[in-house]
Amino acid sequence: MSTASTKRSRTIYYVAQTLDGFIADTEHRIDWLLAFDGAEGIKEHYEAFLAGIGALVMGGKTYDFLCAQKDMPWPYTQKTWVYTNRARPQIEGADVALVHGDVSTSFDAIAASAGEKAIWLVGGGDLVAQYVRAELLDEIHLGLAPVVLGAGIPLLPTRIAKPLTLRSTKTFGRGFVELRYDVPR
Amino acid sequence: MSTASTKRSRTIYYVAQTLDGFIADTEHRIDWLLAFDGAEGIKEHYEAFLAGIGALVMGGKTYDFLCAQKDMPWPYTQKTWVYTNRARPQIEGADVALVHGDVSTSFDAIAASAGEKAIWLVGGGDLVAQYVRAELLDEIHLGLAPVVLGAGIPLLPTRIAKPLTLRSTKTFGRGFVELRYDVPR
Repeated sequence: MSTASTKRSRTIYYVAQTLDGFIADTEHRIDWLLAFDGAEGIKEHYEAFLAGIGALVMGGKTYDFLCAQKDMPWPYTQKTWVYTNRARPQIEGADVALVHGDVSTSFDAIAASAGEKAIWLVGGGDLVAQYVRAELLDEIHLGLAPVVLGAGIPLLPTRIAKPLTLRSTKTFGRGFVELRYDVPR
Repeated sequence: MSTASTKRSRTIYYVAQTLDGFIADTEHRIDWLLAFDGAEGIKEHYEAFLAGIGALVMGGKTYDFLCAQKDMPWPYTQKTWVYTNRARPQIEGADVALVHGDVSTSFDAIAASAGEKAIWLVGGGDLVAQYVRAELLDEIHLGLAPVVLGAGIPLLPTRIAKPLTLRSTKTFGRGFVELRYDVPR
């Protein structure tokens, strides 16, 4: 193993879900989550997280979702890597690179773009599952909204071989919790 | 509303799941959970919970699962109500009543058997979903094992109309968390 890979940037699946494990409802909506945007301390917590991020990785559908938010300028200054098998529109002000194929193949370039900082795996779950299978997922920062939907889009459609290690728990307002885990190798 | 119903026993869905929202794997196994039985403080926490329980309610499959544990005597002294549409074997030393039909119909008898204490809704999720729809679920005590299975038996296959209120968080060992929520009316 090279020095570069042992010192590589950490990858973090930073995501929020319902208590029953859904990151969006069956119509891909997250309005149940946006209700907690104003919870005490959430904004500062997110900004501190984002300050430690050197690059973002997301799937094509997540990119399309962000592009469709017409009343919001592109929210990230970091380079954003979008996994997609087809051309997608560039957004003004966004530093976006389109990639496809095995996540292992493109990882060195992504890590280089993150520098000393971490890589945020934004989602969706299918893309993060590829990182798990390639043994390239280091952490899960799991926001838990106090909501039960009963059905929706799953957190992470793959098995992780070993139990995770809890690093921290944090509560926001009267219902939102964030749990941070390390993924063992 | 009668005085009896306003002062009725609280119902608690006390359950453990994976981070991705499964209470058992696709083969109905919970070995991933039993690995945390020895986590520091778990045993005392469970005993304190059980001391506050006056009656248990479970579905037929959950009852069968407990009956199949040949190396374990029946673990509860409290009356246990089993929802089932067919006859099921009685277990020596168990105070078991078989019930069926709408959960609202049998609730008064169950609450009377619990006295001043709470009612533990053991599961499965389908039965607890009937309590949600009948507006008879008061609390969820959600154990979170630091495990991702990718697929399995869901926590609670129904929607809860309003966000829950977080009452407490507790950590056991290096990975197991319990979150307690009130279900609003």
